[in-house]
Amino acid sequence: MQIIEPTLLLDKKKCLKNIAEMTKKAERHKVTFRPHFKTHQSKEIGRWIRAFGVDKITVSSLKMAEYFAEDDWRDITVAFPVNLLEIKRINRLAAKIKLNLLVESHLVAQRLDELMRFSVSVFIKIDTGYHRTGLTLRESDEIDRILYVIEQSKHLIFKGFLVHSGNTYSAPDSESIERIHNESLAQLEQLKEKYGSGERELVLSVGDTPSCAIANRFGPSTEIRPGTFVFYDLMQYHLGACNSDKIAIAMACPVVAKHPARNEIVIYGGAVHFSKDYFTDAEGEKVFGYYARGTPQGWGPPQSCCKLKALSQEHGIIRACDKHFAEMKIGQLIHIIPVHSCLTANLMKSYLTLDGQKISRL
Amino acid sequence: MQIIEPTLLLDKKKCLKNIAEMTKKAERHKVTFRPHFKTHQSKEIGRWIRAFGVDKITVSSLKMAEYFAEDDWRDITVAFPVNLLEIKRINRLAAKIKLNLLVESHLVAQRLDELMRFSVSVFIKIDTGYHRTGLTLRESDEIDRILYVIEQSKHLIFKGFLVHSGNTYSAPDSESIERIHNESLAQLEQLKEKYGSGERELVLSVGDTPSCAIANRFGPSTEIRPGTFVFYDLMQYHLGACNSDKIAIAMACPVVAKHPARNEIVIYGGAVHFSKDYFTDAEGEKVFGYYARGTPQGWGPPQSCCKLKALSQEHGIIRACDKHFAEMKIGQLIHIIPVHSCLTANLMKSYLTLDGQKISRL
Repeated sequence: MQIIEPTLLLDKKKCLKNIAEMTKKAERHKVTFRPHFKTHQSKEIGRWIRAFGVDKITVSSLKMAEYFAEDDWRDITVAFPVNLLEIKRINRLAAKIKLNLLVESHLVAQRLDELMRFSVSVFIKIDTGYHRTGLTLRESDEIDRILYVIEQSKHLIFKGFLVHSGNTYSAPDSESIERIHNESLAQLEQLKEKYGSGERELVLSVGDTPSCAIANRFGPSTEIRPGTFVFYDLMQYHLGACNSDKIAIAMACPVVAKHPARNEIVIYGGAVHFSKDYFTDAEGEKVFGYYARGTPQGWGPPQSCCKLKALSQEHGIIRACDKHFAEMKIGQLIHIIPVHSCLTANLMKSYLTLDGQKISRL
Repeated sequence: MQIIEPTLLLDKKKCLKNIAEMTKKAERHKVTFRPHFKTHQSKEIGRWIRAFGVDKITVSSLKMAEYFAEDDWRDITVAFPVNLLEIKRINRLAAKIKLNLLVESHLVAQRLDELMRFSVSVFIKIDTGYHRTGLTLRESDEIDRILYVIEQSKHLIFKGFLVHSGNTYSAPDSESIERIHNESLAQLEQLKEKYGSGERELVLSVGDTPSCAIANRFGPSTEIRPGTFVFYDLMQYHLGACNSDKIAIAMACPVVAKHPARNEIVIYGGAVHFSKDYFTDAEGEKVFGYYARGTPQGWGPPQSCCKLKALSQEHGIIRACDKHFAEMKIGQLIHIIPVHSCLTANLMKSYLTLDGQKISRL
């Protein structure tokens, strides 16, 4: 199959290895492995993960939950604050699978209780420092109010506490990521002491790939929900969460123009393919991707001397070092490692494995 | 029709008014109006534009050209450097429509000449200061080499010069946009003097919505190619290219959580809906969108006191002023004006008009 336009390549071997490693890590630490499927959003890749014995998953929307429920996933956490406007979808799903939802307000819990016709499990979302969603431990009154609503409810079942330390993504190094992770664990420990007594079996769920990849202790948590680990990406590499040979996706992009006077390469591959996510490198410049040399097996390590420095709708601009400038030829394909695999995969809508299999997704 | 998840609303009246105004402006300045269809990417909206007498269009990929050729557009410029890997598509299109391509290298022109089986028109892409693609006037040797290849060619027809002053998007104010535009015109004037003599009828094509919206002179250009004008957006408003009542799209997003301690609202609506494009406001903060109050007719003006300040995959975080904080209610929809209509529309894949018509797109 000849590639003629931007195409998201998937190295299945690397992907399977990433899945195997995270599965083993969860086993080693005796935590439930409930991978986040928002990264790949593919039934096919979901089946690769199922083959490792996984039967519980995380998603970030009800649409995704419906998609995976169609493929026989029967225990799904929607790691997003309940959207009451989707109550019909929620009831439809709760009628046939074990559905776990997130709440962070007793008013939402009350309304959910009124609207549910089937049993649904509920996590209270805890904010351990990211300050995106959730209640901080100081908001214990609200936590207690939610618990009270759940205890009185006919349909809501209390599941435990769920955290997402998304602040690891702005950590300067892997030590800081571990520190953020450990602070989350300390807060979960407090919740366990306060609410985990008696016969109640608390699920304490932690997420984010940087923590799950780097950390080596998980107690008191009982469950991990990494997502990006399935492919990793340049951001994870930049954060120290993976080495470069774990990155399982790359974009194949046609070279369409070259500007020797400024060492720039123009590729067909822009914001509608990569997304506009970036990180800022040591020189203070935005990086949307790094060039990687093609190899007979796929692609080599990312070359930070050739950065994808700007994106418009369909164009990408690479500033290349002298060493690699000549090897990028107009009318040929080059490989680019994307910064954020979740957003790139969301835009591309399908994957092409190195042996030519097209893999579809939601 | 009840909206339960992030939905891109389109105010058809405003959109038609934007089309009417730009059509009139082109007529007034005696330039061909060849709108860029990459913003809306919709056959239906294309037909609205056709009703104003437009019969020439611009797109940014061959896939888009194929899509609009299916809807009987017969004169299409692909404003992107020729991707030689798509030569089969190019020949297929050139066999049935008037196809106009961009080159900026004589080697590409040569290769194109060898591979074409049908006639195709060719623009030379000129870089008047944006430095993304194209040849600068100082590279006149290369311009002459391309012209020589075209003159010797059986299939290539020289059409003229095409510029895109994308640097208007980083201009601090509308005076700077006019200055950038006038510098482009001055360079086109030079090209006209040098290459426009004799029987050759040169097309001198200029693009970018900020210039086309703000400028009041277009000579010596003979054609304009604005795209975003069809919807406008917060970026265009921020640049002074439109007033707020011209913005024809808004996202309807469910409110899912509120954090009174930090005046923050969590919406269902994230990077996979808005894109991660942003501008930086006077306080030095990233802005991904502004809240707008709902009205019986649609939505009101953008409220800069309520900014969409962060996006993750599905979440958006609005920091709201006290005045509006209370009116955004959990379980209800609010309106957000997006920063970049092209990228938001690309992600959303369809529009919902205010009278409930769903409009599909590529």
